[in-house]
Amino acid sequence: MPVGLDDRLHLLPVAGVRLDAAAAGIRYRGRDDLVLIRFARDTEAAAVFTRNAFCAAPVLVAREHLAVTHPRALLINAGNANAGTGEEGLAAARATCVAAARVLEFSPEEILPFSTGVIGEPLPVAPFEAALPRLVEGLHEEGWERAARAIMTTDTVPKGASRCVTVEGRDINVTGIAKGSGMIHPDMATMLAFLATDARVAREHLQMLLLEVTERSFNRVTVDGDTSTNDACVLAATGRSGVTLDPSHPEWSHFATAVEAVCVQLAQAMARDGEGATKFITIRVEGGSDPRECLQVAWTVAHSPLVKTAFFASDPNWGRILAAVGRAGLQELDISRVEIWLDDLCIVRDGGRDPAYTEEEGQMVMEQEEIVVTIRLGRGTAAETVWTTDLSHEYVRINAEYRT
Amino acid sequence: MPVGLDDRLHLLPVAGVRLDAAAAGIRYRGRDDLVLIRFARDTEAAAVFTRNAFCAAPVLVAREHLAVTHPRALLINAGNANAGTGEEGLAAARATCVAAARVLEFSPEEILPFSTGVIGEPLPVAPFEAALPRLVEGLHEEGWERAARAIMTTDTVPKGASRCVTVEGRDINVTGIAKGSGMIHPDMATMLAFLATDARVAREHLQMLLLEVTERSFNRVTVDGDTSTNDACVLAATGRSGVTLDPSHPEWSHFATAVEAVCVQLAQAMARDGEGATKFITIRVEGGSDPRECLQVAWTVAHSPLVKTAFFASDPNWGRILAAVGRAGLQELDISRVEIWLDDLCIVRDGGRDPAYTEEEGQMVMEQEEIVVTIRLGRGTAAETVWTTDLSHEYVRINAEYRT
Repeated sequence: MPVGLDDRLHLLPVAGVRLDAAAAGIRYRGRDDLVLIRFARDTEAAAVFTRNAFCAAPVLVAREHLAVTHPRALLINAGNANAGTGEEGLAAARATCVAAARVLEFSPEEILPFSTGVIGEPLPVAPFEAALPRLVEGLHEEGWERAARAIMTTDTVPKGASRCVTVEGRDINVTGIAKGSGMIHPDMATMLAFLATDARVAREHLQMLLLEVTERSFNRVTVDGDTSTNDACVLAATGRSGVTLDPSHPEWSHFATAVEAVCVQLAQAMARDGEGATKFITIRVEGGSDPRECLQVAWTVAHSPLVKTAFFASDPNWGRILAAVGRAGLQELDISRVEIWLDDLCIVRDGGRDPAYTEEEGQMVMEQEEIVVTIRLGRGTAAETVWTTDLSHEYVRINAEYRT
Repeated sequence: MPVGLDDRLHLLPVAGVRLDAAAAGIRYRGRDDLVLIRFARDTEAAAVFTRNAFCAAPVLVAREHLAVTHPRALLINAGNANAGTGEEGLAAARATCVAAARVLEFSPEEILPFSTGVIGEPLPVAPFEAALPRLVEGLHEEGWERAARAIMTTDTVPKGASRCVTVEGRDINVTGIAKGSGMIHPDMATMLAFLATDARVAREHLQMLLLEVTERSFNRVTVDGDTSTNDACVLAATGRSGVTLDPSHPEWSHFATAVEAVCVQLAQAMARDGEGATKFITIRVEGGSDPRECLQVAWTVAHSPLVKTAFFASDPNWGRILAAVGRAGLQELDISRVEIWLDDLCIVRDGGRDPAYTEEEGQMVMEQEEIVVTIRLGRGTAAETVWTTDLSHEYVRINAEYRT
């Protein structure tokens, strides 16, 4: 069960964005596995992709298409990642764009393809061709939740978030959906996220904004966001609200904060739905010399299977956290200045257990579903936060059985 | 069950080394948990320790003692790591040395203390004081196997190895014991290893040799060997064989190879007995530009929980290996030159699945208890090997329940 997430989404439509999903039978049976998202004319879009050297065929094709024109539609399938599939995979990704372009009467370069699922299996094109006419016919502005469900793989709940901000007396909506449930460790971070707003924003500003907010959201659950073969995040701006924004606009930061809030909610949802997760853990490192070393400590703690299994067991085995801080590789760390807190309970101080700490209090905090670990390095003013989960029996079961 | 390990050890005694173990009741009940190892006069010893910033009290004390004199005895307890215990922990570690020194009639600085077990619990000194007279009385050259059992924590079998080499017509024995079973990921690599030989070797040469061989053995299952608060490895040379060796001796490399073989066997035994391990995986990276990038790829694959759960499930999900290679961060990796092999089965070639590969063949290799993954980068001549295990349900159970 995901930690603190509902199965229902309450998403705001975005004028100029229509979506539909269908059960195309690409891999799954009896569930939607193909999504089409169509943008109104003059929509601008920005995207960030995985930096994995083995990036998937659809990533290569999407990058090519973005380089030559403005995207008019996104075509997303779940169940098959079309990664590690060589030239055939590229041909298949291109063929799906051709099929969508034909039905939509766009050029193939105006379609961006995305895939998630098993690596190394050939992607069949025929199910796309068969499903596309239905998909195009069903497009509507209320399709966000159904689309969010259709892109799920090991996700147990659909993921979506919306914000509405008022600028120049008009409402601007920002809505996003995402898939990704392997956030226990970065290498299962196959993540797709699709966001849209009805503000009008130039592509260069959208791209800048997207880079900034992914760094403070998705990259705080996925280490650099560059770990899977298929990771991608798209932010589209349709302009249909009639409001034009750029970074010099007095309300830009208001708008940017809304986009970031949607991304943070989606990123946290991925961790909350982490494979087998029973706890949602926030790791905050304060008092570092610079953000880099704060992240170094935060990730070392967040990735430690020993720390994660202790959270699963609700065991206040704070020694495991302390050992992880110690091995994070910080130069000249003065351990006598380090403090470790579980919520508002101090457990480590002056290089050892806080004299006032009791196991009973530690146990009480550890039994919560949501826990904040604060690590104070006592050597500067930088601070960073990452989100993670515990490591459970269920994690192993899911990842041992996936594919079978 | 450990992979390919016996519960019985066949260890050669080393002249000048006497050992004993006792059930001191430090934490465990009804099993040995305290070991004393006594060296003959004029024994030289070298040691390497954890580089964790939060190193345990016994590590600090052992380093202090080594700086002032030659060690005459090692005192090792299991069940309590005496780490994260601040000034009290230091006082306790010193007190155990004082207790041993009194019974042995040495100075406290001639004793090196070692601890392994739970972090953050005060170490009681009284059980040491009570057990030491018995321990000293029981010292004998055949005590290696019992000592190996007494230092176990989550280990399921004792770990030891011996080699005998002939130099100048005389036999030189090298014997070592170790504990450590958390090798699924480096941060549970709490490792202790104690080796001795009856060759005579100067301390500076012993230290150099120990650094070299730990790099190619323990550090190939534990990333730098610097991850736990308590890691330590000692190599003692008693000189009782009557053979004196130094690096200019024509048989030095013969001797060095024997020491390395003992360390490699101990290191592999830790992986084979990895918590919950059902498979022993060798990851060999060839064709790298330099050893550093080979290790970078090898560790990325070896640490991937997705790869490890696929091994547990005997699932030839080679896409997970490919994705791990791709995200290892190598600059300008030409994926069309990368090959991935499972034993002698080629699975990836030219950036995608080998056309000749079949799932059935992959399945057959994956069902083995021991698997060699070879990754060829095709950009140089460097090669490195690391050892790891799969990730099983049992791993989570052990680490969630340890302490409870």
